[in-house]
Amino acid sequence: MRGAVLHAPGDVRVEDRPDPTIVEPTDAVIRLSATCVCGSDLWPYRGIEKVDGPSPMGHEYVGIVEEVGSEVRNVKPGQFVVGSFFASDNTCEICRAGYQTSCVQRQPGAATGAQAQYCRIPLADGTLVATPDIPSDDLIPSFLAASDVLGTGWFAAVAAEAGPGKTVAVVGDGAVGLLGVLAAKQQGAERIIAMSRHEPRQELAREFGATDIVTERGDDGVAKIKDLTDGLGAHSVIEAVGTQESMMQAIRSTRPGGHVGYVGVSHDVALPGDELFFSHVHLHGGPAPVRRFLPELIDLIGNRTIDPGKVFDLTLPLDEAAEGYRAMDERRAIKALLQP
Amino acid sequence: MRGAVLHAPGDVRVEDRPDPTIVEPTDAVIRLSATCVCGSDLWPYRGIEKVDGPSPMGHEYVGIVEEVGSEVRNVKPGQFVVGSFFASDNTCEICRAGYQTSCVQRQPGAATGAQAQYCRIPLADGTLVATPDIPSDDLIPSFLAASDVLGTGWFAAVAAEAGPGKTVAVVGDGAVGLLGVLAAKQQGAERIIAMSRHEPRQELAREFGATDIVTERGDDGVAKIKDLTDGLGAHSVIEAVGTQESMMQAIRSTRPGGHVGYVGVSHDVALPGDELFFSHVHLHGGPAPVRRFLPELIDLIGNRTIDPGKVFDLTLPLDEAAEGYRAMDERRAIKALLQP
Repeated sequence: MRGAVLHAPGDVRVEDRPDPTIVEPTDAVIRLSATCVCGSDLWPYRGIEKVDGPSPMGHEYVGIVEEVGSEVRNVKPGQFVVGSFFASDNTCEICRAGYQTSCVQRQPGAATGAQAQYCRIPLADGTLVATPDIPSDDLIPSFLAASDVLGTGWFAAVAAEAGPGKTVAVVGDGAVGLLGVLAAKQQGAERIIAMSRHEPRQELAREFGATDIVTERGDDGVAKIKDLTDGLGAHSVIEAVGTQESMMQAIRSTRPGGHVGYVGVSHDVALPGDELFFSHVHLHGGPAPVRRFLPELIDLIGNRTIDPGKVFDLTLPLDEAAEGYRAMDERRAIKALLQP
Repeated sequence: MRGAVLHAPGDVRVEDRPDPTIVEPTDAVIRLSATCVCGSDLWPYRGIEKVDGPSPMGHEYVGIVEEVGSEVRNVKPGQFVVGSFFASDNTCEICRAGYQTSCVQRQPGAATGAQAQYCRIPLADGTLVATPDIPSDDLIPSFLAASDVLGTGWFAAVAAEAGPGKTVAVVGDGAVGLLGVLAAKQQGAERIIAMSRHEPRQELAREFGATDIVTERGDDGVAKIKDLTDGLGAHSVIEAVGTQESMMQAIRSTRPGGHVGYVGVSHDVALPGDELFFSHVHLHGGPAPVRRFLPELIDLIGNRTIDPGKVFDLTLPLDEAAEGYRAMDERRAIKALLQP
């Protein structure tokens, strides 16, 4: 099969790779209908996160089940399935509490790399959720979004306790931040402030439900959020970047007693204890337990209530994955969908 | 009047000071029935927190209202009142959300220092809560505890979401940690693990409801908590120290999806973003909004459901405050009550 491999920072190549096979009796192998490049793929691509030798890439996937191991009961060949970036048994105490991304059996969901034609998915019963029918082609980008960026934005909004009567601010205008806007809207937020200085992203934020746009960043951004909230700060703030600046911007934009939902993968962040202490915020986040939300998200997409697939503003054949990375790295594209 | 003043690290003196008077029309002046030394008083006493010149000390107080300003409506001379370390209007949006210690009008509750015979309390209507009657003497230590350490332990347990079916671990065996045990018990926790290597404190922890004692600290303490919880960690962890070690011990002792309630005043703490991210814990805390809980705590003490006053294992005349500081600094006493 064809699959994307990162050889060194900036060097992604789509090459011939071995077809994945069932290794454990709990595995499934899927044929990808679509895959994509994640903002978090840019960390190793930019050399900020180290990589040991050539690495198969990709962890977002939807596709048709090709084959299942002997112990798989919940999905079967021919079904269209959505999974996510960590595999989970969905039966342990941590999974049952809704934290499948900390499952006691947690492991990479796309074991062989999802930017490929085929992929092996471990713990298939716990990890994959089948759609009721094979979806029409125009829905595929939205189901693909559910496998990571939508599920992550959704978790951020849940962690930030977005809801009726709440003012929600969103730090980060990547796909996750934008889908955090969509999630906050769906969860009933009254006012949604998107922080973005990038016009096409502002537009999509408004389309997803943003009521206000703040272009300022850092302390100026915080001051602007305070201005918009009687000096108090937002009730709920979604953090979707993962840097020291974005975390502090999120914490400082939140009113005392409010909630920060942070999902940007943390890089070189150290939170000052005294400031956090006196901020009085609730802080929750981490790798989104997308699996918790998949049944609900699949419904909302299937009945066309939401259209998260709009975050894909670039579609390329899998073989042109390198251009997808470049376009996202240079912020020419919000998110690149790859067609295997 | 007589009042305690910190002149330099280790140098607390009780001396003649001016009687407080009404300054703002929203003030009250109270005659203290009892006051005490706080664990947080030890930070400046030990020279870790800097002090500019001689400082009147004390922020925990119960007493009889002597005089009120012209705008005070809710309390009147002759009533026995409980307040707390920050004054709050109890009417702003932040107070109404239950975060009175971040009130938009927040200011020190014991404006003139509570380790004294009299004290001026600002924003009396929002800050003070009167008991139904003048309490009998034996209840006074418990009401005094409500003004800070009980209210703080209670908030920590609420922030940690202690409750039925939960395993709660408590980091810190000072008065706040011990009352965190009591609070977790009252809030219905199933199992309460007190972390203490100090026998009299272990005993009081058991009396307050601890079901297990862990004497190990740091990584060994974390390993012990994991052992006791099927390898997962506690559902709820109360942090009542405020150091880097205690915060990390609390976070690492909490299962993914669990809650850390932290109330130890933070000193030189920097939380590593990546570890926090992957820990999947909820983090909430800060200066306890004691005012939120006072009506409930006053009831529980008045009807003798709880006896938090047991944390006072040393009672001294106010004039011997210096000995109270020394005894707590040397961990000879859990908490010293001072009789004005």
